Amino acid sequence: MTLIDGKATAAAIKKEIAEKVAGIVANGGRRPHLAAILVGHDGGSETYVANKVKACEECGFESTLIRYESDVTEQELLDKVRELNEDNSVDGFIVQLPLPGHINEQKITEAIDYRKDVDGFTPVNVGRMAIGLPCFISATPKGILELLRRYNIPTRGKHCVIIGRSNIVGKPMAQLMLQKIYGDSTVTVCHSHTDNLKEICRTADILIAAIGRPAFVTADMVKPGATVIDVGTTRVADASRKSGFRLQGDVDFDTVAPLCSYITPVPGGVGPMTISMLMLNTLLATERDW
Amino acid sequence: MTLIDGKATAAAIKKEIAEKVAGIVANGGRRPHLAAILVGHDGGSETYVANKVKACEECGFESTLIRYESDVTEQELLDKVRELNEDNSVDGFIVQLPLPGHINEQKITEAIDYRKDVDGFTPVNVGRMAIGLPCFISATPKGILELLRRYNIPTRGKHCVIIGRSNIVGKPMAQLMLQKIYGDSTVTVCHSHTDNLKEICRTADILIAAIGRPAFVTADMVKPGATVIDVGTTRVADASRKSGFRLQGDVDFDTVAPLCSYITPVPGGVGPMTISMLMLNTLLATERDW
Repeated sequence: MTLIDGKATAAAIKKEIAEKVAGIVANGGRRPHLAAILVGHDGGSETYVANKVKACEECGFESTLIRYESDVTEQELLDKVRELNEDNSVDGFIVQLPLPGHINEQKITEAIDYRKDVDGFTPVNVGRMAIGLPCFISATPKGILELLRRYNIPTRGKHCVIIGRSNIVGKPMAQLMLQKIYGDSTVTVCHSHTDNLKEICRTADILIAAIGRPAFVTADMVKPGATVIDVGTTRVADASRKSGFRLQGDVDFDTVAPLCSYITPVPGGVGPMTISMLMLNTLLATERDW
Repeated sequence: MTLIDGKATAAAIKKEIAEKVAGIVANGGRRPHLAAILVGHDGGSETYVANKVKACEECGFESTLIRYESDVTEQELLDKVRELNEDNSVDGFIVQLPLPGHINEQKITEAIDYRKDVDGFTPVNVGRMAIGLPCFISATPKGILELLRRYNIPTRGKHCVIIGRSNIVGKPMAQLMLQKIYGDSTVTVCHSHTDNLKEICRTADILIAAIGRPAFVTADMVKPGATVIDVGTTRVADASRKSGFRLQGDVDFDTVAPLCSYITPVPGGVGPMTISMLMLNTLLATERDW
């Protein structure tokens, strides 16, 4: 069994990006520039955005953090999005979600020019990905593809079973694993209404769990030799930790891991990859001629 | 075994639309208006467009056919698309494909405002469908959904296996069958690189064949009691026909049909549904407040 080390992989990717940026700058080019809009002071969002700013520094990117108090109007945000769309000094930008309840998140997301939508959440990018056109792939599915690729895990013709059909993981993951230019796998998507879930999971060469149910995938659902990718990160109470909780994946790691050829741990698997994928998308934004 | 009659279903749908339009007009409303751009004189395209114009008449729609010779420039077409985007008297429009080789089809398609894209081919509509937002669903997948619905074929929690991953059938069909608001099925997509294709097909409660290989699906690939939807329409030589050919589906009908609970014939199954779905989208375009 090989443990897939997302933390080390993410660090390696950020190092590769930093080297590339150093080369660009040495040749007189401009540093990639990522902007982030942060509304309010939600603890989780503050941490995510701070980590993104830090990753920009590690990669040699310019970064701009645009803050609003939580009473910002939808129109103010829309105006800022449109300003960033037009701003040639900004290569890509993100609007950190969630937004306060009085703001229509979908409307804000849709206002982002797809050529700067490095989160890959706009309908245009989702559609372009589905059709197989150049696009920004959102961070979590892109990170999983990258882990499979860097660990040389064969995907072509393999049966990939995905548990979960969310817009940010299950659905895009299915589309990517299916397409010839990405996974080229046979793909099955299971969910809460699936009959014979265990039986289907047992046929998977690659099993991707993204449902947010702690330790849902048990040893009897995994074919010996399978690759298991765990996207779940649920906080479960743990009195032995200083924080009082630990992150628990969707996979019952201790019983499943011995069966696998490859498996991602939680934490330290898929999670650390996401910010490095955002950095990769921002670098791509500077290179892409749509 | 029940034969799914696409021809009768399509006729019923057009009749329902015509009644709805008659009601709209009786209440002082405006008839739905579909425009079509046709370039050149390709025989197939001429027939398709003529059938669409005829369907508009049957449904009580206004229709406008805009013709160009095959030496039209890309810019002229783009200008016309933008004009139709802005024209408030047009509810929806299509650009009949294929276009001559000197014109970038993707560029033309992307120029269509998604709110008038009744073919559902723009990346925005593809993305909106994937995310579960209001959208136009393209005719063939929408027609299949409609047949399943009108024949009361259960889809929720069932295993739907799709053979083929094209942008116009396999991929959108997979997304629709997967989503809770449409099929709510467990979905597997197979294709030319799938290992164990027969075995996987045999697990299908609903098998949708969309690969364009005549009589590819044989009896040993079908579970008794399954529903089989045949999207293939390949012309095969047939000396007994006046035309010298007949349409052959992807399913070996004679051996497969006796096993099925429901099956679509070719011709007369999925094919006749497509134009009625275009009509339904055009009607929707008049009702929708995006």
